[in-house]
Amino acid sequence: MKKHNFSAGPAILPAPVLKEAAKAVANYQGIDLSLLELSHRGPEFTAVIEEANALMTEILSLPPEYKVLWLTGGASTQFFMAPMNLLNEDETAVYTDTGTWANKAIKEAKGFGKVEILASSKDQNYNFIPKGYKIPKEAKYLHLTSNNTIFGTQLHKFPKSPVPIVCDMSSDFLSRPVDVSPFGLIYAGAQKNLGPAGTTVVIVREDILGTVKRFMPAMLDYRTFIKENSLYNTPPVFPIYVSMLTLRWLKKQGGLKAIQRKNKTKAALLYTEIDANPLFKGTVAKEDRSLMNICYVMEEKYAALEKEFLAETEANGMVGLQGHRSVGGFRASTYNAMQKSSVQALVDLMQDFARRKG
Amino acid sequence: MKKHNFSAGPAILPAPVLKEAAKAVANYQGIDLSLLELSHRGPEFTAVIEEANALMTEILSLPPEYKVLWLTGGASTQFFMAPMNLLNEDETAVYTDTGTWANKAIKEAKGFGKVEILASSKDQNYNFIPKGYKIPKEAKYLHLTSNNTIFGTQLHKFPKSPVPIVCDMSSDFLSRPVDVSPFGLIYAGAQKNLGPAGTTVVIVREDILGTVKRFMPAMLDYRTFIKENSLYNTPPVFPIYVSMLTLRWLKKQGGLKAIQRKNKTKAALLYTEIDANPLFKGTVAKEDRSLMNICYVMEEKYAALEKEFLAETEANGMVGLQGHRSVGGFRASTYNAMQKSSVQALVDLMQDFARRKG
Repeated sequence: MKKHNFSAGPAILPAPVLKEAAKAVANYQGIDLSLLELSHRGPEFTAVIEEANALMTEILSLPPEYKVLWLTGGASTQFFMAPMNLLNEDETAVYTDTGTWANKAIKEAKGFGKVEILASSKDQNYNFIPKGYKIPKEAKYLHLTSNNTIFGTQLHKFPKSPVPIVCDMSSDFLSRPVDVSPFGLIYAGAQKNLGPAGTTVVIVREDILGTVKRFMPAMLDYRTFIKENSLYNTPPVFPIYVSMLTLRWLKKQGGLKAIQRKNKTKAALLYTEIDANPLFKGTVAKEDRSLMNICYVMEEKYAALEKEFLAETEANGMVGLQGHRSVGGFRASTYNAMQKSSVQALVDLMQDFARRKG
Repeated sequence: MKKHNFSAGPAILPAPVLKEAAKAVANYQGIDLSLLELSHRGPEFTAVIEEANALMTEILSLPPEYKVLWLTGGASTQFFMAPMNLLNEDETAVYTDTGTWANKAIKEAKGFGKVEILASSKDQNYNFIPKGYKIPKEAKYLHLTSNNTIFGTQLHKFPKSPVPIVCDMSSDFLSRPVDVSPFGLIYAGAQKNLGPAGTTVVIVREDILGTVKRFMPAMLDYRTFIKENSLYNTPPVFPIYVSMLTLRWLKKQGGLKAIQRKNKTKAALLYTEIDANPLFKGTVAKEDRSLMNICYVMEEKYAALEKEFLAETEANGMVGLQGHRSVGGFRASTYNAMQKSSVQALVDLMQDFARRKG
């Protein structure tokens, strides 16, 4: 019996993907070698990365000018690679400060050019998404974080931007259909909806590259990865393989529209309970609630019961529900691979807990 | 029956490591979750990375001023991270040009400071290791490549250096005892002797850091990884886990002295056959022959038989023996995890082939 895994990341992966991945580590497709021992330039891995690129292109309906790249170093590496590749020292990039990671992205960008913060919800502990700010058309790009993993807010509508959007989609990548045309660059660490930790996907519109004048090492230049099809050096073979399996699974689920429906159903189930249950309350503005990371706390008068409730979740086979220290309380991450039955189990426990303790 | 895997990298891993890794992907230690789904800050992975660090420290007999770091991006990322962290624009680093990767390291370093090439074997297609060069004591560091994977040469004795040595040990890391005291920094992609592709180990003497004046993004500053114990952001969990398993295996084998003995025996077996067999010849200076990557070709008069011999290796369950395009012929990589019986199988085939075709 598998645990109900509410971890924020590395996070739950589909059971059939894990089964296939375990087999590949033991003996890849019956060739009497482990996937881990295969040359990244051999026919087996070439087929893997080509299928991963084709599936990503199909699932996201990417036009041909968008390239799919497989990197390492997480979103934290993209925080500086994006400005390093896009922003000259005398140019300005505009950012919104919507959470811990957006804040770190801002800090890194300042090392490469001018940075203007258009809007911030920092004063309110990032419990809402600022809107209605003006985006200057002279800016080189607008940087957004589509989903704030720590605080549980999500951009449900992207602003209309006169400049290309660079977006950290780490924690809601592939959870819903996205029209990529306003985006110059999308990046996402794999370890939420895509695969295990160890690879980072970058989707880049090729024409936004090549305008910066600084020296860039080969491994920090997106054009190296485009030119070499992510095989300039040895890529993270296993994380890319598992991501490919997850993309296969996602396609089989019906793609982004179908997964979005499921994600909406799961999130609605839990938010409805949070709002109805007298012991709990949500922490963010309702209109900005994330469908991926659902943050909530105990109502003040029940605050002393927090640890007890957490212990009960664990006793009932649920893991990863402790909230991030920046928010406290609980965080239920309900990524693509989570079954509705796991959310139902949590809701049932909340109801039962309220009956016993309320 | 497992194949005889002579791949240069990603390369053979010990069979018990692969078995354990496959189990961890399916269900980690019976906790009803996959290792791939676990938080990198949870108790399970904390134990993994702590054990990996302790084993590395023990196996390499590292003094306390040396830190073990787990990064991503391969040696190709270290080619620029090392000079970025160590070399100011007006300072000089000295390099030896002993192969394709050394050459790339030189190229990247030029982006950060002055680079002087002390010696090169490029004119001879890198078929020997230059020696006897003078190392200026004003240099910031000396960069060496301990083993040249593509050309099959290895530094059997490190030069006495008045300045700290920075060394790319990717393809002979943990294959023999090394006195680390002359080294300021050692780096190695995992995918040869240590684990699967997807993590890079850096061993750094802390006091060589902190002298450069440039802006460095958090993810490119070695001090970030020291301070956060390689957990500033989500690390490549699975590649680090498998590396830890390989370190456990290596300790069980008796450590570096014992593995060196085995590696010497395996290499001697094959080099003896190459020298004795009238159809084959080695490609590099005998005194510089690598114990990890054994490069050889057909004698001229038998050149037409190359493809036939390669086909026979494959028919006999051997993979990865085709030489790199820069050298041609054959390359047998005989990393730590390779059994003597695999080398013996290759030697037997060479003898049999000579009897039939010579």
